[in-house]
Amino acid sequence: MLAMQMSDSILINGSFNGAISALDRGFSYGDGVFRTVKVVHGLPEHWPVHYQKLVKDCSAIGIVCPSAEVLINDFEQLFSMEELVAVAKIIITRGEGERGYNPPAITNPMRVMIKSSLPNYPQHHFDEGVSLHLCETRVGHQPKLAGVKHLNRLENVLARMEWHDPKIADGLMLDIANNVIECTAANIFARYDNVLMTPQLDQCGVAGVTRKQIMARAHTLLLKTAVETMDLKQLLSADEVIICNSLFGVWQVRQLENKKWFKQDLAINLRKILHS
Amino acid sequence: MLAMQMSDSILINGSFNGAISALDRGFSYGDGVFRTVKVVHGLPEHWPVHYQKLVKDCSAIGIVCPSAEVLINDFEQLFSMEELVAVAKIIITRGEGERGYNPPAITNPMRVMIKSSLPNYPQHHFDEGVSLHLCETRVGHQPKLAGVKHLNRLENVLARMEWHDPKIADGLMLDIANNVIECTAANIFARYDNVLMTPQLDQCGVAGVTRKQIMARAHTLLLKTAVETMDLKQLLSADEVIICNSLFGVWQVRQLENKKWFKQDLAINLRKILHS
Repeated sequence: MLAMQMSDSILINGSFNGAISALDRGFSYGDGVFRTVKVVHGLPEHWPVHYQKLVKDCSAIGIVCPSAEVLINDFEQLFSMEELVAVAKIIITRGEGERGYNPPAITNPMRVMIKSSLPNYPQHHFDEGVSLHLCETRVGHQPKLAGVKHLNRLENVLARMEWHDPKIADGLMLDIANNVIECTAANIFARYDNVLMTPQLDQCGVAGVTRKQIMARAHTLLLKTAVETMDLKQLLSADEVIICNSLFGVWQVRQLENKKWFKQDLAINLRKILHS
Repeated sequence: MLAMQMSDSILINGSFNGAISALDRGFSYGDGVFRTVKVVHGLPEHWPVHYQKLVKDCSAIGIVCPSAEVLINDFEQLFSMEELVAVAKIIITRGEGERGYNPPAITNPMRVMIKSSLPNYPQHHFDEGVSLHLCETRVGHQPKLAGVKHLNRLENVLARMEWHDPKIADGLMLDIANNVIECTAANIFARYDNVLMTPQLDQCGVAGVTRKQIMARAHTLLLKTAVETMDLKQLLSADEVIICNSLFGVWQVRQLENKKWFKQDLAINLRKILHS
């Protein structure tokens, strides 16, 4: 079952000579969780919040999360202070198992950390805002996994396959009940006057770390926050819409289907408070 | 990204020295499909139906399935005529990709074939029938993936983790609309007089090969077949209930929750027609 991994950008269980087993339950069933973290000068940004979320997501599917020390050691092996910015993807799986859904009585969780470059985002996504595609692929309901960033991501893959126009920054996903949930790789907020609203994610969706940070800090912009069920019509009637994730931070949404929003400052202001 | 696999029971892209990449999209997102096939004296049982289903499932998520010849060659490498019975698990993924949900412009699908022993099923499951657990974990709706045996199987894992009693053969899963769908690793049929009914799987569930074979051959037992939406109450009022998959074939259900069924012959008769 052992395999040799030949790459200086991938750590498997802390080793450059580690292995992904064909019997790993992450591979067999998507039985695991992951995080994508921006790494600035060797240091993972917003690490305490990311680690807290990783522990919570592992716990949601009954995996014991590796200690923060173990992961910090992985960061130190893979990243250096000299690098301005890079991306770490952390994957934690339930580890190897025999064929069949039943996990072994004793599991050995497996961890992978993969280093990659920060995507070459167009500068005008930051300066002018972005256009979104409205995805036909819906997010299914599964309350037991709602909010969790697990490895069962075929819905996101199918949704992302719907458009090829590079001018489209992301795709908005509704759920099977026609509620607005998220983008394929970002959370979404809509502002109505002084209320910053984000979709309820108790049936599906991924509750991301940047979404959490924005909710915790919006009051510094004199904005109240609300987590609500929201349909497409409600979203389209918002004064402003932004999307967010851990890599690009915050982008102003300027267009969705036929709806256009004027250039406004919510994304700029949220970016500031995320780094204050 | 290359890795050496050290096992004589695992073929990766046709090679015993193959590799599971940490960047494989099967591992990253569950972006792939699989099959479990019984292999008798080196030959995969019901192979044409299995291969047809594999092609269909690959197609549902936009993967080009390897040719039958390629897979037959894998079987020949891994199994021998001298072996009475064994199990082949075939996994097809979209192959490697950069970080992010968007598949690469050119994909190289990856295939894995894993050989394992047939589970040591208790003989009384065949002779006397089985008890089922009623799972609390529901199957979410996702019409785009309904019926497909893809690698996003966390729901089955969570459902299978609900019981530890080895006397329970499988768990019955309802969907989020309270309809009967399947067991964690089997399809289900209910007989009402001369009608053999199985749940509609247009919103979720896996439409297995044994289910298909039973539907195609039930007429030889003078049974009509029907695919219907079915709730738990309807299931519990059936004259007989059976579950089926490619490994154990067919088992008579004798108990689910407080409901008990008398010993009857449907499973025995279906087993016969599957091998006629």
